[in-house]
Amino acid sequence: MNIRFKNARILTMVDGQDIFEGELWVEGTRITYTGDAMYEQDIANAGKKFDRTIDCGGNLLMPGFKNAHTHSGMTLMRTYADGLPLHEWLETKIFPLEAKMTPEDCALLTKLAILEYLTSGITAIMDMYLAPEAIAKACEESGMRVVQVSGINKFGPSLEVFEERFLKLNGRHPLSSYMMGFHAEYTCDRELLEKLSALAHKYKAPMFTHNSETEREVAECKERYGMTPTVFLDSLGMFDYGGGGYHCCHMSDEDFEVFKKHNMSAVTNPGSNTKLASGIAPVKRFLEEGINVAIGTDGPSSNNCLDMFREMFLVTGLAKLKEKDATAVGAADVLKMATVGGSNAMGLDDCDVLAEGKEADIIMIDLKQPNMQPINNIADNLVYSGSKQNVKLTMIAGAILYEDGKFNIGITPEEIYREAAAIQKRLF
Amino acid sequence: MNIRFKNARILTMVDGQDIFEGELWVEGTRITYTGDAMYEQDIANAGKKFDRTIDCGGNLLMPGFKNAHTHSGMTLMRTYADGLPLHEWLETKIFPLEAKMTPEDCALLTKLAILEYLTSGITAIMDMYLAPEAIAKACEESGMRVVQVSGINKFGPSLEVFEERFLKLNGRHPLSSYMMGFHAEYTCDRELLEKLSALAHKYKAPMFTHNSETEREVAECKERYGMTPTVFLDSLGMFDYGGGGYHCCHMSDEDFEVFKKHNMSAVTNPGSNTKLASGIAPVKRFLEEGINVAIGTDGPSSNNCLDMFREMFLVTGLAKLKEKDATAVGAADVLKMATVGGSNAMGLDDCDVLAEGKEADIIMIDLKQPNMQPINNIADNLVYSGSKQNVKLTMIAGAILYEDGKFNIGITPEEIYREAAAIQKRLF
Repeated sequence: MNIRFKNARILTMVDGQDIFEGELWVEGTRITYTGDAMYEQDIANAGKKFDRTIDCGGNLLMPGFKNAHTHSGMTLMRTYADGLPLHEWLETKIFPLEAKMTPEDCALLTKLAILEYLTSGITAIMDMYLAPEAIAKACEESGMRVVQVSGINKFGPSLEVFEERFLKLNGRHPLSSYMMGFHAEYTCDRELLEKLSALAHKYKAPMFTHNSETEREVAECKERYGMTPTVFLDSLGMFDYGGGGYHCCHMSDEDFEVFKKHNMSAVTNPGSNTKLASGIAPVKRFLEEGINVAIGTDGPSSNNCLDMFREMFLVTGLAKLKEKDATAVGAADVLKMATVGGSNAMGLDDCDVLAEGKEADIIMIDLKQPNMQPINNIADNLVYSGSKQNVKLTMIAGAILYEDGKFNIGITPEEIYREAAAIQKRLF
Repeated sequence: MNIRFKNARILTMVDGQDIFEGELWVEGTRITYTGDAMYEQDIANAGKKFDRTIDCGGNLLMPGFKNAHTHSGMTLMRTYADGLPLHEWLETKIFPLEAKMTPEDCALLTKLAILEYLTSGITAIMDMYLAPEAIAKACEESGMRVVQVSGINKFGPSLEVFEERFLKLNGRHPLSSYMMGFHAEYTCDRELLEKLSALAHKYKAPMFTHNSETEREVAECKERYGMTPTVFLDSLGMFDYGGGGYHCCHMSDEDFEVFKKHNMSAVTNPGSNTKLASGIAPVKRFLEEGINVAIGTDGPSSNNCLDMFREMFLVTGLAKLKEKDATAVGAADVLKMATVGGSNAMGLDDCDVLAEGKEADIIMIDLKQPNMQPINNIADNLVYSGSKQNVKLTMIAGAILYEDGKFNIGITPEEIYREAAAIQKRLF
């Protein structure tokens, strides 16, 4: 389907926060034009035909947000066990429940998360969860762009399954891919980590993991190996082909050097880090060191929502508190993390900005809600005042999956809610 | 107009987080029934007639949020000057602009804020800003409940005007009242403060002020008077009839004692305190000391949005970070602050909970948005996952001012945006 967006403000993210008035064309899955407004006659003369013309009425088009760390299927456990610290929450509440979930459960619960992503303008997710085949299928059926990451740990799966998934879940569908990863240093033994590093080398693959999320995690790793998680994993060659860390709240000077040396990404998860009292990531320092920063919501059981607007405000707000400096980590940096930074981390080079030839992963922001008025600085306002309520439309690979509160993912919200309630009844 | 809400979940806030299924009646401005579902025939037999019956479809009714500290008219300066510390921001950017604003400007800009309050389920505001007569009129015309607080300081107005407003702006309209207050210790000289205290005694009136917002403010007060702002103001008898402090980030043991002695309220403003890097209020300690805590957004130029959901998540999240304890200040406490705690601070004893005889300040929360599914713990979910997108309806004193994205405040959003843009053009 070819779609023309006219009468728009456009924030391409190609040159920072510059916004211009004009139009944008989508043909198939790609953007074929962004620029000044065109006369209808010139468009007709050029032989261009659109299936639909959307008058944006001065609203804003921008690249969709990239949610660079999540566990979508955990929608089931949203507010199931709040108010616990990370390790107790995982071990006493989450792991026992997850042991009972089927791949079909995972697929349905992922679709529930997808509804929420779309309401928040999220057009791609980096998802680490159980049943990767089922998750890939759920995303492909829904039209969601997904980069899955293995969460292997000492409880499973086997290294053979790990390698098989890496081979099988890449190249099967344009919307879905699979990257190497493991749950965390503290849930893997040394032998497993060494074998994972060998696989990273075999395929020259970047590697991702939960990293230095809590003080306890760092302290225990130092006790075990005499090194921080980052330095220890690097000593095994784990990041020789890049990759990144989720959370990264508690970083040493040496840790920053490791990230720089291997061009790794730091994925910050401020919602989860506040709710679980894990700490505040040193985002300002990451930027100063030139390290790519992306933003993730983490899973809906530790956050508890999947909302990039909340995360963006928290990234800048917590940085300001941490640094005791109201100028720390401004809105322009945060917007870049939520779009281009996420694409960089996730290997989605074609989905980062609005430009000819790029994938049409686009959102429309309603500037006619009171929180966007009067219009002083739109880009700042997205970060400091934006909300899910401002998302009028979410498009992934040229398909409109969400528009004016209505979803188009091949299954109704009501059906998803009904099935989620049935899973809840069966498992709790 | 008499309205029957049927088929609802109801969170009355009378007994903490208990939620039951039933119905609620509004007759005139008051709630006349909350309880089990009634048969239509029994209602007819009892001679009850409703102008409208709203089928809530299982959605949640709860008391509207009380925004216990704001400067509504500052909508004009939203993202006008981000990234500055408090004092520089006030002195170089805000004060010069405010000097040029007319009462008519204030009224219009207050209406812009009211639109946003309604989208966030806020049914009452404690507003400190210029041109109180114009603000009262704007709120009364719109149907917004407002408790104004004087922001007198050494630049004005005169004490005569202060007293005249206190007398004139109370009792003029059921939706609007006026309380004594002043901007802050650091913008008033000692003589003015002594005279304000005398007026508090003359009228046995509670007194409100910005209090211990920044470390600098506390340090400078100690230099001037050898005491913290709270202790110094108390030494003048300022709080002998109660009142409260806005922000209260930097509190000493003695400060807590002053708040307890005078039954004062602490109004926390976490959005503003993060954005301006002012600090994290000791909310857990306030609760432990039995001090009433309310929540405010602060003004839209320092936050930059007027969203109680953002504030609620920040209250609990920042408390957890500050205490390094994921169990600190749970959702139940936060919901109480955002409703009953606000009413207590603002002297709105009839607007705190959903019960017979109380004012009908009610919101309906859409539980059929993906961020509320599956339903595990609704009350927790409001705080940890709720957003403006979940507000389906906002009612104040029995009048529906916002429903399914449409406003009913006597002026259209488009007209407000147009006039706000004209003010912007004239003043910037």
